[in-house]
Amino acid sequence: MISDTPDFPISITDIRKAAEYLAPVAVRTPLLESPYLNEIAGRRVLVKAEVLQRTGSFKFRGAWTAISALDEKVRARGVIAYSSGNHAQGIAHAASLFGVPSIIVMPEDSPALKLANTRALGASVVTYDRAGGESREAVGEALAAERGLTLIRPYDEPMVMAGQGTVGLEIAEQAKAAGVSEADVLVCCGGGGLTSGVAIALHSVAPGLRVRPVEPAVADDTCRSLIAGKRLSNEGNPDSFCDAIVTPMPGELTFPVLQQLAGPGLRVEDQAVLIAMGQALMRLKLVVEPGGAVALAAALEPCNVEGDAVICVVTGGNVDPQLISAAAATFAP
Amino acid sequence: MISDTPDFPISITDIRKAAEYLAPVAVRTPLLESPYLNEIAGRRVLVKAEVLQRTGSFKFRGAWTAISALDEKVRARGVIAYSSGNHAQGIAHAASLFGVPSIIVMPEDSPALKLANTRALGASVVTYDRAGGESREAVGEALAAERGLTLIRPYDEPMVMAGQGTVGLEIAEQAKAAGVSEADVLVCCGGGGLTSGVAIALHSVAPGLRVRPVEPAVADDTCRSLIAGKRLSNEGNPDSFCDAIVTPMPGELTFPVLQQLAGPGLRVEDQAVLIAMGQALMRLKLVVEPGGAVALAAALEPCNVEGDAVICVVTGGNVDPQLISAAAATFAP
Repeated sequence: MISDTPDFPISITDIRKAAEYLAPVAVRTPLLESPYLNEIAGRRVLVKAEVLQRTGSFKFRGAWTAISALDEKVRARGVIAYSSGNHAQGIAHAASLFGVPSIIVMPEDSPALKLANTRALGASVVTYDRAGGESREAVGEALAAERGLTLIRPYDEPMVMAGQGTVGLEIAEQAKAAGVSEADVLVCCGGGGLTSGVAIALHSVAPGLRVRPVEPAVADDTCRSLIAGKRLSNEGNPDSFCDAIVTPMPGELTFPVLQQLAGPGLRVEDQAVLIAMGQALMRLKLVVEPGGAVALAAALEPCNVEGDAVICVVTGGNVDPQLISAAAATFAP
Repeated sequence: MISDTPDFPISITDIRKAAEYLAPVAVRTPLLESPYLNEIAGRRVLVKAEVLQRTGSFKFRGAWTAISALDEKVRARGVIAYSSGNHAQGIAHAASLFGVPSIIVMPEDSPALKLANTRALGASVVTYDRAGGESREAVGEALAAERGLTLIRPYDEPMVMAGQGTVGLEIAEQAKAAGVSEADVLVCCGGGGLTSGVAIALHSVAPGLRVRPVEPAVADDTCRSLIAGKRLSNEGNPDSFCDAIVTPMPGELTFPVLQQLAGPGLRVEDQAVLIAMGQALMRLKLVVEPGGAVALAAALEPCNVEGDAVICVVTGGNVDPQLISAAAATFAP
């Protein structure tokens, strides 16, 4: 274990500051436990229920923190983000609560529900023609320059990492209250904003808790990158229904953190994820989306970890009704 | 508003004691809010998520409190309950955590999942032949006498009322943190253990929050009894899928509390309950069973209450996969 983290883009102080920003508005999500899941896993399974966060995912934490940290005059001009998913909803809602404008740049072929939700949360949605080769960056940069908007990236953004890291502060306190001081903490990993933020938090306040990133087996860039010691890309166009966490490669700012602080990555198949979603419905009473369920899927596999307990984060619950039904149908007691 | 409650079976002191018993084991369930539900209701809707409680319903609170309050020697001999539902699971799990035996008397034609869950949580299940005219009391009393078991009733039981009342203590604190000091608090009402416990708690610590019982329209015994000023029965065999809260009549101990402290009852149709279950899945990320969703269904109807905010409790989430799918299918953004 290293003694300090001088090279990281954020420190525990930034994460504590984020926790102060979030205290009046964010949900302190519970750390849940079910005897049924413990039985399946062969150990205690503690589940951090971030699906209960505002907008249905942990992304609100980073969005609120990044907007909070802006200079007041800069903030008043508004923010912009590229996202068709949970980051978009987090930014839209956080900006709306602040009373500042937000523009979300989304592909014009995004699912109708995602477009509608993002607008309902208060954002102006600008679409671009992905198939026609239009670049979201070109669309976004022109708008940002014209209106003086601040771009908030989904993971390679220090204040976003700090906001997501508050999940780690809460896990540390809640795990201690549950009597757990040594465990692997499994975190769904796309670009690594949540995983790296939680890693920095736990390194500082609960060194017996070690982060391990979890990915879909077909999009295991972080897992392979940690082995290779350098950032590797996913090849081709990975086909997984865990689309929310399929990213091209680990983040530039996030990966060095994982290299120093995270344990080995874990990989899960889509079918195991669907079954974990069904267990979450029936045993935890939680709706979890595929990308948000990979860490739970990994936690339910007894061979993946050692020790008497495992902690996992269910990160998002924004899923359509058909997939909820499909997950429920997998349930077998 | 009356100044004290001398005739009630429990006092705020009992509820505070219950909160002490529960602190190390129960989930402090969050009070959630969704901008989408606020939009539907035309006011803020704060939802107390008791589906996240151990065993998937608030019943664990009363069970744990009642078992905690027993003399140690009496407790060691074990407890017994009549229930095929959430009370059974609460008693089974609470007894198991205490390491004492529990016997649950259930109809032999109970759903297989309920039988399996109650056993999995550590209870010995004894079935009786409901159709053949066997009496659960006869079965239970013989066992209780033989083994020295303590019977724990589901609602007409002071320590159970005190345990359920802790939901009210938490609502008072969480509503205050959310900036709400005046509101109706809608509570799903069967026998009235939860409703009366919450009423006593709020009367003492947050007098601006007023309890109102909510029932299925076809089993509105409490609503009618409050109007009549005396306990009235449901007629016939009410046909509602909210089976968990269809009880013959208000409780003997609970009803006088509601008479003094509760506002008028509310009635909801099954179809509105199914739609509320769909909204809970999609907007709150929560699985709620029909009987647990009636208060949310009432809260989403703008004409039911006055004021800028309404609080409701979603009380249980023990539902089968088919009904989850049916609820999800009702969702329209």
